[in-house]
Amino acid sequence: MKVLAIGSHPDDIEIGCGGSLIKHRAAGDEVHTIVLTGGGRGGDTAFAMDETLAGTRCVEAHAGAKIMDVTVECWDYNDGEIPESVDLINRIEKVVREFAPDRVYLPYGNDTHQDHRMTSHVAKSACRKVKQILEYEEPSSYNSFSATYWIDITPHIEKKMEAIRAHVSQGHKEILKAKSIEGLNLYRGYQSQVQYAEGFATFRFLES
Amino acid sequence: MKVLAIGSHPDDIEIGCGGSLIKHRAAGDEVHTIVLTGGGRGGDTAFAMDETLAGTRCVEAHAGAKIMDVTVECWDYNDGEIPESVDLINRIEKVVREFAPDRVYLPYGNDTHQDHRMTSHVAKSACRKVKQILEYEEPSSYNSFSATYWIDITPHIEKKMEAIRAHVSQGHKEILKAKSIEGLNLYRGYQSQVQYAEGFATFRFLES
Amino acid sequence: MKVLAIGSHPDDIEIGCGGSLIKHRAAGDEVHTIVLTGGGRGGDTAFAMDETLAGTRCVEAHAGAKIMDVTVECWDYNDGEIPESVDLINRIEKVVREFAPDRVYLPYGNDTHQDHRMTSHVAKSACRKVKQILEYEEPSSYNSFSATYWIDITPHIEKKMEAIRAHVSQGHKEILKAKSIEGLNLYRGYQSQVQYAEGFATFRFLES
Amino acid sequence: MKVLAIGSHPDDIEIGCGGSLIKHRAAGDEVHTIVLTGGGRGGDTAFAMDETLAGTRCVEAHAGAKIMDVTVECWDYNDGEIPESVDLINRIEKVVREFAPDRVYLPYGNDTHQDHRMTSHVAKSACRKVKQILEYEEPSSYNSFSATYWIDITPHIEKKMEAIRAHVSQGHKEILKAKSIEGLNLYRGYQSQVQYAEGFATFRFLES
Amino acid sequence: MKVLAIGSHPDDIEIGCGGSLIKHRAAGDEVHTIVLTGGGRGGDTAFAMDETLAGTRCVEAHAGAKIMDVTVECWDYNDGEIPESVDLINRIEKVVREFAPDRVYLPYGNDTHQDHRMTSHVAKSACRKVKQILEYEEPSSYNSFSATYWIDITPHIEKKMEAIRAHVSQGHKEILKAKSIEGLNLYRGYQSQVQYAEGFATFRFLES
Amino acid sequence: MKVLAIGSHPDDIEIGCGGSLIKHRAAGDEVHTIVLTGGGRGGDTAFAMDETLAGTRCVEAHAGAKIMDVTVECWDYNDGEIPESVDLINRIEKVVREFAPDRVYLPYGNDTHQDHRMTSHVAKSACRKVKQILEYEEPSSYNSFSATYWIDITPHIEKKMEAIRAHVSQGHKEILKAKSIEGLNLYRGYQSQVQYAEGFATFRFLES
Repeated sequence: MKVLAIGSHPDDIEIGCGGSLIKHRAAGDEVHTIVLTGGGRGGDTAFAMDETLAGTRCVEAHAGAKIMDVTVECWDYNDGEIPESVDLINRIEKVVREFAPDRVYLPYGNDTHQDHRMTSHVAKSACRKVKQILEYEEPSSYNSFSATYWIDITPHIEKKMEAIRAHVSQGHKEILKAKSIEGLNLYRGYQSQVQYAEGFATFRFLES
Repeated sequence: MKVLAIGSHPDDIEIGCGGSLIKHRAAGDEVHTIVLTGGGRGGDTAFAMDETLAGTRCVEAHAGAKIMDVTVECWDYNDGEIPESVDLINRIEKVVREFAPDRVYLPYGNDTHQDHRMTSHVAKSACRKVKQILEYEEPSSYNSFSATYWIDITPHIEKKMEAIRAHVSQGHKEILKAKSIEGLNLYRGYQSQVQYAEGFATFRFLES
Repeated sequence: MKVLAIGSHPDDIEIGCGGSLIKHRAAGDEVHTIVLTGGGRGGDTAFAMDETLAGTRCVEAHAGAKIMDVTVECWDYNDGEIPESVDLINRIEKVVREFAPDRVYLPYGNDTHQDHRMTSHVAKSACRKVKQILEYEEPSSYNSFSATYWIDITPHIEKKMEAIRAHVSQGHKEILKAKSIEGLNLYRGYQSQVQYAEGFATFRFLES
Repeated sequence: MKVLAIGSHPDDIEIGCGGSLIKHRAAGDEVHTIVLTGGGRGGDTAFAMDETLAGTRCVEAHAGAKIMDVTVECWDYNDGEIPESVDLINRIEKVVREFAPDRVYLPYGNDTHQDHRMTSHVAKSACRKVKQILEYEEPSSYNSFSATYWIDITPHIEKKMEAIRAHVSQGHKEILKAKSIEGLNLYRGYQSQVQYAEGFATFRFLES
Repeated sequence: MKVLAIGSHPDDIEIGCGGSLIKHRAAGDEVHTIVLTGGGRGGDTAFAMDETLAGTRCVEAHAGAKIMDVTVECWDYNDGEIPESVDLINRIEKVVREFAPDRVYLPYGNDTHQDHRMTSHVAKSACRKVKQILEYEEPSSYNSFSATYWIDITPHIEKKMEAIRAHVSQGHKEILKAKSIEGLNLYRGYQSQVQYAEGFATFRFLES
Repeated sequence: MKVLAIGSHPDDIEIGCGGSLIKHRAAGDEVHTIVLTGGGRGGDTAFAMDETLAGTRCVEAHAGAKIMDVTVECWDYNDGEIPESVDLINRIEKVVREFAPDRVYLPYGNDTHQDHRMTSHVAKSACRKVKQILEYEEPSSYNSFSATYWIDITPHIEKKMEAIRAHVSQGHKEILKAKSIEGLNLYRGYQSQVQYAEGFATFRFLES
């Protein structure tokens, strides 16, 4: 199986579907990831873009990817400015055509963060021939997110936490976030009667 | 894999998930089905219960099941009067405990037909430990039904139509219904880029 | 009665509301249609714009319109790049002011295709004084589309199919699409207790 | 055109669709109404049933109906106890078969008042062959009610208010309610660019 | 301020809004709670009612209430059989009239557990004059639950956990549940930028 | 308490939350407001921008603000062209950082007017650290708006009407609008058992 995950900023993928990606790798699946921005504002559009930070966070994205044992490419969109543009759709679609994923993980489309919304919208357009699209959950996706698909990540929770913690430049904020995500995964696990799980909204799933 | 499908009336299961059940059988899965009522009113509560018709329709349910190559049991609730009761929940739960299905197919919970709503509600309570619950689509479930899960039934569409046509006592109405369902499956197929597909709402799906 | 239909690409109008437009004409209503793009990518943003194809598809839009016996104008937006812009809103609003439609047919606003979403949004802004707005259904609008308004198109299904087949440059893909739409219309017909019907989401309907 | 309106308690119909019924009568349509309970608790289940009040309110229902120039029958269910039962479905269905309405007005199905919910559910089952079903709005239906269908009642607002005020046993509470409904109708009018309008959720509308 | 919380089974209140109740008490608010069933099946309708267990769990409900420093009354409905009945509405309404709460906490109305759904529906009818109604979150309420109201419970998380652990008869299952709820509260805290929070759906809130 | 309200055009704030702002002032709260456009088209994108009108309407915005006793700043975006841009997010965020509001009032995010949608989206991004966000209701927000939060504005309805009427350049249209809003507030009042109320959708509310 070939799996593609797309995130707006470094650490989005680890947070939303890191455990599932690690599980795919453990099952021998091929996993590729794309991070659209360097995260040069630390997720905060109020600060001017910091190219150095963007560079640092991209290095951390590679560190996180290495822990998850997946490939990653960092694109050059500016934090907070991901456009709903044809160019971006085409760029993603090129990867989709070449890599030909069986499943794609995307941010939730009704997220309160504009970058997550845009990433979800453009990627859905680019992935319109992909058979399985699951939308992952982040703290900013509380707005009408309804989990319908759970993936048991019990054996992989430690490694997922390690991958999130690779984003050291985010400091204490990242540690808090990691803990809250572990809490969420424990809750999603309880809901689905396993120990740790990631929850997804099923956007489109074809059983062929 | 063990699969359970539950329907309110004879022919509901064939219509909503017949192709998927045939596919499960072709893959060697074990498939059991339960029909809650004998359909003694032909789906029309305005007519008095017709015990003979209920008997006839139960025979047809067995004919349909035979074509799909699945087991079936007909229960004794009255057409139009399926209750949201603990007794019914317990009765379904007993089957669930003994048969231990990996997946359950149910009517859509927001259907405009009261029997379909009740069946969906009680079965979800009874199946709260089942890992995969998919809600199937019927003409009465137009009300906010949103397909998120598709199953490719291309090789099985002929047999599905045959199973629906086993409900001969419903006469011309059943033939019209069968054709409209074939049309829907063709449309769902086009949406998911195969030839024929059944569409489902993903109620709960655990990938373990 | 004066009726306006707006589509993103050649064939969208035929697919979503072609039968209803033919019915309006049969009842003596005046019907005008606007196609926003020439469809130069065949609906596929991965391919570079093909001006010749855009020209060809516009010719086919006229052929389809002729079969439906409606007027049509093809606008010059690029396939996949319909903008949520004031210019486009103004351009549509100019038509609305001059033609003064009693009813408008639009693509569904929560469609998974970006052009359909944009067309729906800008047209709703431009049509804010139109009394009846119905959103039509296409294969890409599965995402939460809920039919609440049905139009019986039984006498007009043949001509509708003919109008879709006028889009010959789309080849085999168009024939598959046409069949799936016929299937959908048969299903929507069964739901509403006629033979063939088109289903719509009621966005706004004033009975004056 | 033949029109049926169903309400849970005396005054529900006047409030939700009284202006539209008066308009139907002005257009020469035949209008029949059913009130399921005598309203013996004044809408307040905390008080014991008051048979005399139920009788009084039924008399007022006739007074309101007379003002609207429609026929009415008061049924004998207890205020607050309308059941989701087959008997009630059958009873409504009998009227539907005999009167054969082209359009039915019902309470909103997701109302916070249990009687309104039940009335809506059972009536939808009973009216499954009726071509037009519109759900009307009451103060208790704020919960996700979304108006999609408006009826201009400008020439009839005075008579509607008079019909509501016929429910004199409800005293000051009814006068407040009437004023708030007039306010709502003015707002719905502004939304739809007329003076006074009633707003409805389109449950099912077949244009044949 | 006077606060009422209603739960279907012993431990529901602790789980869904225990931290908020403790916070109310710390602020000097008066807090009363009602548990509708003795929980005689341990939440599992497949087992016959166990009167002794129901008694035991009621004792634990008092232990939990004591830790939260709130009053509690255990009612006598059977686990899994909470009815949508006028009697139950009246019984709750009697408490509401006498206690006159400013705020009520209820289970989520679209929960997948039938008892939670029924409790929410009947209580909303009974509380129709209460100014603030918040619906709390439990593992069975994943189905379309959308948090819009958060309460910071950071200083009270320890005591909340202690109150949940008072339900010792539920054994290991309760300990797992407690941990998953602590995880959820940590996540809800991160979302709302505090340490621990409980999330609610705002059903009705009047700021007077 | 510090309160910020943001509107797309002059008079939006008065209409949607004017009564609540007056109430905040009466309670001694600090209230600041931002109007994003001068409203140079009178809300009608079909007319060319009228700079003089934009100036006039900005003067009226100040008159309305004076009546409500709040501060106001008029920004320079063009009517109908509010962008979903990072620049606008940053500009709002700068105000949020400096003013540090405890509560923000915004237009409803699913409004049918493009300016209202954009204002809501960008402001939510800019206000992601604000603890209370309420979305106000306008005639163009009928589309799925569901009131969950009510504010009693009974003592302030007269002053609210006066503030709306300050927008004299809009002439008769404004007077009609004001009356319809008074009607809506009377209805929202009846729903929440006070005399006049404004209704809001609870986007995010943290009780700390």
